[in-house]
Amino acid sequence: MIHDPAQRSFVSVEPNSPFPIQNLPYGIFSTSTRPAARAGVAIGDYVLDLAVLEKRGLLRVPNQGLFSHSSLNAFMAAGRPVWQSVRRQLSHLLSQTPTVLQHDTALRSEALVPTERATLHLPAQIQNYTDFYASREHATNVGTLFRGPENALPPNWLHLPIGYHGRASSILESGNDVRRPCGQTQPPDGDPIFGPSQRLDFELELGIFIGPGNPLGSPIPIGNALDHVFGFVLLNDWSARDIQKWEYVPLGPFLGKSFATTISPWVVTLEALEAFRCSAPVQDPAPLDYLQEGARDTWDIHLEVGIQTRCLRVPHVVCRSNVRHLYWTAAQIIAHHTCNGCNLQTGDLLATGTISGPGEAAYGSLLEITAGGTRKLVLPSGETRTFLEDYDQVRMTGWAQGDGFRVGFGECMATVLPALV
Amino acid sequence: MIHDPAQRSFVSVEPNSPFPIQNLPYGIFSTSTRPAARAGVAIGDYVLDLAVLEKRGLLRVPNQGLFSHSSLNAFMAAGRPVWQSVRRQLSHLLSQTPTVLQHDTALRSEALVPTERATLHLPAQIQNYTDFYASREHATNVGTLFRGPENALPPNWLHLPIGYHGRASSILESGNDVRRPCGQTQPPDGDPIFGPSQRLDFELELGIFIGPGNPLGSPIPIGNALDHVFGFVLLNDWSARDIQKWEYVPLGPFLGKSFATTISPWVVTLEALEAFRCSAPVQDPAPLDYLQEGARDTWDIHLEVGIQTRCLRVPHVVCRSNVRHLYWTAAQIIAHHTCNGCNLQTGDLLATGTISGPGEAAYGSLLEITAGGTRKLVLPSGETRTFLEDYDQVRMTGWAQGDGFRVGFGECMATVLPALV
Repeated sequence: MIHDPAQRSFVSVEPNSPFPIQNLPYGIFSTSTRPAARAGVAIGDYVLDLAVLEKRGLLRVPNQGLFSHSSLNAFMAAGRPVWQSVRRQLSHLLSQTPTVLQHDTALRSEALVPTERATLHLPAQIQNYTDFYASREHATNVGTLFRGPENALPPNWLHLPIGYHGRASSILESGNDVRRPCGQTQPPDGDPIFGPSQRLDFELELGIFIGPGNPLGSPIPIGNALDHVFGFVLLNDWSARDIQKWEYVPLGPFLGKSFATTISPWVVTLEALEAFRCSAPVQDPAPLDYLQEGARDTWDIHLEVGIQTRCLRVPHVVCRSNVRHLYWTAAQIIAHHTCNGCNLQTGDLLATGTISGPGEAAYGSLLEITAGGTRKLVLPSGETRTFLEDYDQVRMTGWAQGDGFRVGFGECMATVLPALV
Repeated sequence: MIHDPAQRSFVSVEPNSPFPIQNLPYGIFSTSTRPAARAGVAIGDYVLDLAVLEKRGLLRVPNQGLFSHSSLNAFMAAGRPVWQSVRRQLSHLLSQTPTVLQHDTALRSEALVPTERATLHLPAQIQNYTDFYASREHATNVGTLFRGPENALPPNWLHLPIGYHGRASSILESGNDVRRPCGQTQPPDGDPIFGPSQRLDFELELGIFIGPGNPLGSPIPIGNALDHVFGFVLLNDWSARDIQKWEYVPLGPFLGKSFATTISPWVVTLEALEAFRCSAPVQDPAPLDYLQEGARDTWDIHLEVGIQTRCLRVPHVVCRSNVRHLYWTAAQIIAHHTCNGCNLQTGDLLATGTISGPGEAAYGSLLEITAGGTRKLVLPSGETRTFLEDYDQVRMTGWAQGDGFRVGFGECMATVLPALV
């Protein structure tokens, strides 16, 4: 239990809330009474309106209007010293130490918006989206299904974090329905056909939001890589396995992925996750110098995926995994992405790839859970699934567990709608 | 020869100029005396300043300020009726029919900027960049080199236009140098190494700029696809073959491409190319319904690639090809890209993939010309090349040949700089 008033908020926060004062994740929101989207911080069941605080002169920031935009990009570009300064100020304003926010009733009711009255938006203008393939367990599981056990891990896999560019335009914030895509597939015998995907899947991933970018031609050395990370979100890399399987050789996944990607709306910062650093798996063979880290830091973040059908009253958890299982770290992903001079831009989103862990209970996609659709998943309602059916809801959640509090991500959730045919 | 005054400009234009009055391509430019980037049209050796014309009330447009932005996106979003109306007005203003632009000397000197005084910029804010693989000759040549002749054309190739998402942040306008990338490669025997690419290549492509986009979840039917095309540019899809070869299985090209993509700065519209429509190759097998076109329209656009080393005084042409060779058309590319509901956005760039034609003289990349680096290309200087060396300049050009005039693209040009190591 926490007794230090600086470590508790005057806003009442339930012990299992993802958003205690130790978290302070950033998002973009609007309200019916003030429809202009602006920056906020989640605290318990409230959104703290940063545009109001800034306007009232209660937040010292280098540029005026940093929080009154419809994206966090300007704040993301400001860099770690500014992020740390704002976090200190917010921690103080929200603490049990007497502050103007706590005691000015009018200010408090203007600045603290009940979450149910807030509409959340994408936190950033995402110019570029890249998806990686950083979990050894996932790559082994999927490689076995697509290419057989003898070719499961491609020859390059242990030498570099494999990645590909994804579709930035179809990234959605949690809560938006996802339409089952149509596409071209190849039945086992016969000619290709066009129609709704029959093998719609989720992938449990972590999304990395880039703060300051790098100029074209100037790689980010691995030692500086985390300076470019603003924070993390949960990410569902929706995948139409039948479309993907037919299209992906030789140029990679395309329409099997580009119809939708869902992210959780609150960006959890590295500062909030500092206490949850842990070691990443040992790498053998040792990677090349540009991918070598001093300490192989990652984060102990528990992840869960639940599926809720129309017959279930609560989501049924089908996966429990953890960010710590990832073989390639966030720093390695960034160093590799830029080693050819490629420029990252503020607001870019880098996803880790499906985070599977050791053991079947930690498989991060239905492709793995049902062994490519050959093994039925039985739900508490008695229903079975191989892949997702219409109106199934997929809910991802995740948190770092502290002593008496959780630094959580909230939800990354969406419901599958039938294809338009 | 053209004698109709409406088909000739009062601005003197050389017969081989890419920019006669029949063309009127759009671009973004600035000048030292007016550094704010704005829209212009190329006419002979001049840039016609559209922001000036608009401000003077000489262009009727639906929204004020359409041409005073630093990108063409607002104009691109306006759609074909607006594009056609503006084209008619510009054709009239620039014709030999007496007009205010011709006879008002002060206006003329303000609005007609000599090209050598204009700095050209990227024509659009490019949110998403997709690269296809639409030339059967190229896919066959490259497939043979990478996977052997028995697996040259992947099983899906004749059924759909294969594509992948490329990197939007590293797209550069013609004239910007390109730094040789470093990256991880796999020597024939031994462990992977990191260093400058030894197999730097060009790829001759056509870039398609999207005008109005489509909402997420609403595919663009093939019959409407060209309504979404604003125009074309030349595109050099720089490729580091050694990096690409090691990384591309299973998720496709990534760092072997993402260090740079060069485009020509003038966007040639479909209206300007209307007279140069021709038939695309017959497709066998017939594609699925969603990829079936009434008339298989493409464009007769001649393309050339020249290489100029420090020992050469002019570029040596190493490839002569034509857009008409492409197996998959622009309309098919758009219909396929959106058939899963993926949303295109205004300013998106879709590239065709390397446009090789039948015969070795029409190979659109050094990979093909030198048979994967096994056959030396001999230049007039006596120098030889397998792949590009530092300070080599690659110059792409292209035009549709009319009777006494050319609808041309100008240049897509860049020089290779040594790697930073």
